[in-house]
Amino acid sequence: MNIENLMNEDIQIFDVTTYGLGIGEHKGKMEYIARDDMVICGLDYVIQILNKLSIECVLYAKDGDFVTKNTLVLECVSNAQNLHYAWKISQNLLEYLSGIATYTHHMLLHARKANPNITIATTRKNFPNTKEMMIKAVLAGGGSVHRLGVYDSILIFKQHLIFLDDKLKLEEHFKQLKTKFIEKKVAVEVDTYEEALYFASLGADILQCEKMDFDTLKKCVSLKSQFPHLLLSATGGITVQNAYAYAQCGVDLLVTSSPYHAKPLDIQIKISKQEDNQ
Amino acid sequence: MNIENLMNEDIQIFDVTTYGLGIGEHKGKMEYIARDDMVICGLDYVIQILNKLSIECVLYAKDGDFVTKNTLVLECVSNAQNLHYAWKISQNLLEYLSGIATYTHHMLLHARKANPNITIATTRKNFPNTKEMMIKAVLAGGGSVHRLGVYDSILIFKQHLIFLDDKLKLEEHFKQLKTKFIEKKVAVEVDTYEEALYFASLGADILQCEKMDFDTLKKCVSLKSQFPHLLLSATGGITVQNAYAYAQCGVDLLVTSSPYHAKPLDIQIKISKQEDNQ
Amino acid sequence: MNIENLMNEDIQIFDVTTYGLGIGEHKGKMEYIARDDMVICGLDYVIQILNKLSIECVLYAKDGDFVTKNTLVLECVSNAQNLHYAWKISQNLLEYLSGIATYTHHMLLHARKANPNITIATTRKNFPNTKEMMIKAVLAGGGSVHRLGVYDSILIFKQHLIFLDDKLKLEEHFKQLKTKFIEKKVAVEVDTYEEALYFASLGADILQCEKMDFDTLKKCVSLKSQFPHLLLSATGGITVQNAYAYAQCGVDLLVTSSPYHAKPLDIQIKISKQEDNQ
Amino acid sequence: MNIENLMNEDIQIFDVTTYGLGIGEHKGKMEYIARDDMVICGLDYVIQILNKLSIECVLYAKDGDFVTKNTLVLECVSNAQNLHYAWKISQNLLEYLSGIATYTHHMLLHARKANPNITIATTRKNFPNTKEMMIKAVLAGGGSVHRLGVYDSILIFKQHLIFLDDKLKLEEHFKQLKTKFIEKKVAVEVDTYEEALYFASLGADILQCEKMDFDTLKKCVSLKSQFPHLLLSATGGITVQNAYAYAQCGVDLLVTSSPYHAKPLDIQIKISKQEDNQ
Amino acid sequence: MNIENLMNEDIQIFDVTTYGLGIGEHKGKMEYIARDDMVICGLDYVIQILNKLSIECVLYAKDGDFVTKNTLVLECVSNAQNLHYAWKISQNLLEYLSGIATYTHHMLLHARKANPNITIATTRKNFPNTKEMMIKAVLAGGGSVHRLGVYDSILIFKQHLIFLDDKLKLEEHFKQLKTKFIEKKVAVEVDTYEEALYFASLGADILQCEKMDFDTLKKCVSLKSQFPHLLLSATGGITVQNAYAYAQCGVDLLVTSSPYHAKPLDIQIKISKQEDNQ
Amino acid sequence: MNIENLMNEDIQIFDVTTYGLGIGEHKGKMEYIARDDMVICGLDYVIQILNKLSIECVLYAKDGDFVTKNTLVLECVSNAQNLHYAWKISQNLLEYLSGIATYTHHMLLHARKANPNITIATTRKNFPNTKEMMIKAVLAGGGSVHRLGVYDSILIFKQHLIFLDDKLKLEEHFKQLKTKFIEKKVAVEVDTYEEALYFASLGADILQCEKMDFDTLKKCVSLKSQFPHLLLSATGGITVQNAYAYAQCGVDLLVTSSPYHAKPLDIQIKISKQEDNQ
Repeated sequence: MNIENLMNEDIQIFDVTTYGLGIGEHKGKMEYIARDDMVICGLDYVIQILNKLSIECVLYAKDGDFVTKNTLVLECVSNAQNLHYAWKISQNLLEYLSGIATYTHHMLLHARKANPNITIATTRKNFPNTKEMMIKAVLAGGGSVHRLGVYDSILIFKQHLIFLDDKLKLEEHFKQLKTKFIEKKVAVEVDTYEEALYFASLGADILQCEKMDFDTLKKCVSLKSQFPHLLLSATGGITVQNAYAYAQCGVDLLVTSSPYHAKPLDIQIKISKQEDNQ
Repeated sequence: MNIENLMNEDIQIFDVTTYGLGIGEHKGKMEYIARDDMVICGLDYVIQILNKLSIECVLYAKDGDFVTKNTLVLECVSNAQNLHYAWKISQNLLEYLSGIATYTHHMLLHARKANPNITIATTRKNFPNTKEMMIKAVLAGGGSVHRLGVYDSILIFKQHLIFLDDKLKLEEHFKQLKTKFIEKKVAVEVDTYEEALYFASLGADILQCEKMDFDTLKKCVSLKSQFPHLLLSATGGITVQNAYAYAQCGVDLLVTSSPYHAKPLDIQIKISKQEDNQ
Repeated sequence: MNIENLMNEDIQIFDVTTYGLGIGEHKGKMEYIARDDMVICGLDYVIQILNKLSIECVLYAKDGDFVTKNTLVLECVSNAQNLHYAWKISQNLLEYLSGIATYTHHMLLHARKANPNITIATTRKNFPNTKEMMIKAVLAGGGSVHRLGVYDSILIFKQHLIFLDDKLKLEEHFKQLKTKFIEKKVAVEVDTYEEALYFASLGADILQCEKMDFDTLKKCVSLKSQFPHLLLSATGGITVQNAYAYAQCGVDLLVTSSPYHAKPLDIQIKISKQEDNQ
Repeated sequence: MNIENLMNEDIQIFDVTTYGLGIGEHKGKMEYIARDDMVICGLDYVIQILNKLSIECVLYAKDGDFVTKNTLVLECVSNAQNLHYAWKISQNLLEYLSGIATYTHHMLLHARKANPNITIATTRKNFPNTKEMMIKAVLAGGGSVHRLGVYDSILIFKQHLIFLDDKLKLEEHFKQLKTKFIEKKVAVEVDTYEEALYFASLGADILQCEKMDFDTLKKCVSLKSQFPHLLLSATGGITVQNAYAYAQCGVDLLVTSSPYHAKPLDIQIKISKQEDNQ
Repeated sequence: MNIENLMNEDIQIFDVTTYGLGIGEHKGKMEYIARDDMVICGLDYVIQILNKLSIECVLYAKDGDFVTKNTLVLECVSNAQNLHYAWKISQNLLEYLSGIATYTHHMLLHARKANPNITIATTRKNFPNTKEMMIKAVLAGGGSVHRLGVYDSILIFKQHLIFLDDKLKLEEHFKQLKTKFIEKKVAVEVDTYEEALYFASLGADILQCEKMDFDTLKKCVSLKSQFPHLLLSATGGITVQNAYAYAQCGVDLLVTSSPYHAKPLDIQIKISKQEDNQ
Repeated sequence: MNIENLMNEDIQIFDVTTYGLGIGEHKGKMEYIARDDMVICGLDYVIQILNKLSIECVLYAKDGDFVTKNTLVLECVSNAQNLHYAWKISQNLLEYLSGIATYTHHMLLHARKANPNITIATTRKNFPNTKEMMIKAVLAGGGSVHRLGVYDSILIFKQHLIFLDDKLKLEEHFKQLKTKFIEKKVAVEVDTYEEALYFASLGADILQCEKMDFDTLKKCVSLKSQFPHLLLSATGGITVQNAYAYAQCGVDLLVTSSPYHAKPLDIQIKISKQEDNQ
């Protein structure tokens, strides 16, 4: 994460208002207060921003902490110019990332009521240019990573299979893939029980069940009796609302993008003047 | 926007699945289809990605176009490796940006029913590291820009005023600000009618009315009879749901972050095999 | 401003002379002395360079200070290698930026003799790749920013108008522009009184009078009686020599690129050896 | 040279004026015309900018060409949006770089009247962040490079010698330097004839005579009879005005920063509307 | 891979020799010829470099091809300046990357004589700043990737286990790790048979046997009868010389850094003059 | 050298193993121990990495020091997460760069037995994207730099001469080159004694003798009696094995790429747990 780019997006060359009002040299205090119960996230980035601006600060929480409404999470002191440089970009980071972390946290709570060992992992469909931030927020909320991109894991889609049009070819290439990347599990996206059975037989490690109804999903899960090492995930439209129901189907993990779309949560920023001779 | 960074986020070094399956050299076609009515956005970026990958394509729409459900917006041909490199990052761009553009579009339709000249402008509270993309989507949806950051406009907050603790000082600095940046309008965020009246008298060009109830807001708008060049904006929690009601209060513009939080819209990607001798 | 790029331009991999002479480990002191009266600028960048090189320093002035000839502005201590890395790039920054700041300062003094409230604002025609530095120097000298680029302000040139060839179209598009970007003032570059009158009537906020003779300029300024909110700027060839004369015409601001071309001012750098056991 | 950074400095996200006026899609032609006799420079960069914007163009000159007043050097066709994106940044490049190239050219003409083989080489004291551009302009004007930075050449200053406080040590380190970087010439900056004689005897390849009066300079040049491989350069305040006088002293090259401070030369940009059906 | 950075490393501002000789505009042809049998690699990068320089070229091989001594792999035509810009950096890429690819290829041939299904995968211990290039060369040679870094896979070292000092804690954390990242295989580095047995029992998917003698290694491999899904890799000092012997021990894959240290192979570059009127 | 890029190559977003095991917050110590006699190099980079991670450390050696087997060179303390982030990338830097430095050192020892003043300088044929690191390692080992790229020195190859096909032209261009870049020595690569004699007569400063047998090389060296300022270097296949023999031929320097291919040397990293209450 390039912190200078983050800051540059909001600051560029100078702050017209603070400069034009001629108040930049006054000393002030800035407090960050959670306005709701939340899993706080973004503090690591905010600290880096404050450091870049040589702003002294005290942290009262850390990324991943659950904080209650009205908790003071961070406090800092500097001149008005620096506080105004840091204000919105740091508030913004905390609000967006805590939104994602908190959503993930709730989703996990719901799903674990049905299955205490279930994992929630988010997809590579983050908002472009935000992967690191969004992933850190998901982890802070107790979630896991499904895949970072195409480079770190194997997931076979229909969009791959169309290039392997006869079964013999598919089976031969499937086997080569397993040998070539023997240290990785092979996941296959399946839409039906028949596909699920076929790929389980072929040696898939993970079946990613896409937009299945609960009955089909359960039927796929039942393949585990036959293939004891097989893992099953559900994906497609999974949110905090339906996480419990999907978890009840017996899958090992839920794969979702919904935490990425969580609304930002409110972080109040209080700036107050300090006596300049302090 | 650094297109290589965008792509790198998803691709890095290579696509394990496509490489491992040994299908990278097959020729394929990829079609992008809007699954709902939407204002399409993101095509400019997608074209740049396809160009980087030397993928030939045909465009059937452009950013800002309103397209109906099932419209084919883009079609391209390349080898399977390149198509898999381009797939998700381009789908993602179109889904997120069209979500924002379409939300903005609907918000504007609602607001303009109450006031046909009203402007909807979005704040600097975009998701960090996405400003250019989010602003382009807002513009595509018919919206405008409130301010890009602290460097392009003047907006006085309480957080500035606390550093100017007596009125004389405030008025003197306010005047200096107007002289120094004489080519910019001076906006002030106000919470009450009294503040609004005070800053209008002082020569503010724009009063940004923060989280006011409709009666107070209307009362502020009534200041226009006394200060004919004064502009008024409403801000704080404005969404597609309440845009009409706020517009009815007579403000000149609505300032909002809600389009940034719009859900992505569905873009279907169809990949099909082409005969390799084509 | 990427400080590493600035340094890299002069240093790259190593300093052949200091390395080859084998003197890099000796301890030395480096003093920066203004060789003329000047508005000093560049110290903020220099401090960042010294920090990157872990050079301890003491500042005796800050950006924007007026310092007299022979003033010691900065003093630092490190090993010879680091001092030689920092020497020219820091001297260069101070000499160029103080040149711009001082020129701006004098131009403002001249112009304010004729009109004590006049503003001097510099254009977007900085040397490519130096905008942030040049703007900071202009601000340090008491100047203001005309526009950073095409993204932060509205300025209609003939080169826009040629695409709107009939008056009706022009007037309709002009009105749309004002509505769309209602928070920005609309400036129009005009060459004649007739154009000035026309765009004032149309609702332009600022008329930028390009290379007008003083009589025409004064006639344009007289439009202020008719359009009390109208602002007028003069532009085209304005320098420290003619700033007074232009200011006398009654314009509100002078728009100029001439500070960008100011000659660098002399900063003397004294390096002396320190005892190594200090 | 990062072309995207150059463009970004002026464009960022969008051009408010062109966008707000709704003229971006109209087709136009843009012509670049030299308003004075000049050595043109900057075309290589401009072409890269036009390519980035997919603007078609025809070149009528190339970097380093001497063009007379009113010469059309470049012509291009695109939509209004792209033309406005390219306009000022390309004009700016041509104006600044042609200014430097032309100044260098004249300086060389003057100096060569006195000594037809003399070389003019510019220092590392370019405006920070512009080295590549400024050097290319100097080369286009017929000049040469004195040193790019500390990494490509050896130049011993007093500021090195203070760390070698006795002669024996100096002579031993000087010898080591020559052995270590045997493929490079060793230059030494000298202020007096005595220093010149001393370092010539020590084996310096080049004596850089700093701010010497003409008599001293000539006396130093006379060392060539004794040290036939010795080169002498003059430096310190050398400009187009005094280049002839310095050249007459018999030095082999003039080392100068003055071309970097040359005023930009005028390039006229004519934008005209094209019929959209072309 | 930032191609501009690669080129910049060798070129920076200009080529002194070609420029100084005044030959830059002459037209020439450049041919790339393999001087030995080799698996060629680096052509993808070279093509990008040639494209950046607008050099036309014809490819006679592609990355991963086995070419015999004296094969012409690439041919291009441009002016002398561009050819000299491209020459060494492209030669260098081909020589180093083909060295790695060819080494990997031979190592695989040796190992597969003992075990036709064995995989050779390279570690994250590439030369810093070359990962993408080195990995592409390994893939071109038929190798696979062990892990790109700490972010894409799980590998437990002693250096992790020291922080989990009692067995209970270790077993609990091990289980959590498997649940949290259920889609990834868990690899553990082991030094002895006892450790191997212990971690196999705990549910490790892969045992990475570090610097074991062949007997111990075979004993570890024998755990497969008891743990049929268990994979075993050998690591620590594995080279082309001993790959066969390690493969004979029955491990599933060899994990090695040795291809990264392969000597570059010779690529001859022939530059010839073309008639300028061609 | 961009330290963040170096780290990013191995770390990206997070360390799956350390995170998944939940051990990141424990406190640990990490020690770096040379496992062989070596010239240590890379510590400057490692310190920058440790600083970025806010890891406290104590250095017991510096780049260029010769350390004996089992020397502790660096020790640091932090939490387990940071230690695991720093571990491999810092080990890797030290191993590769100390390998190069030590190889260079031995090569110089061998060559200086034959000629105590000989210089060993490395070419521009470093592994792409590693120039700064590799050059620093060569310097640390006592070597010198032949040329960084095409921008810092003159070296005429056959590949230049083919564009100057008649002697008159060659001689005229050769003279222009010397005048234009009068501050640089002119090196020419020669294959035979005849070429050597020819270019010495023409005024070349350095003859780079490419892959000559020892007799021819000695004959070329004998040109020094005739051309007392002439320098001679040997190049082409020079390694630690034959450095002595080449040095005996009387050349002034050896130009080689072989240090770049040196095998990494072993640096042991010991991580131990610290009591968390320390």
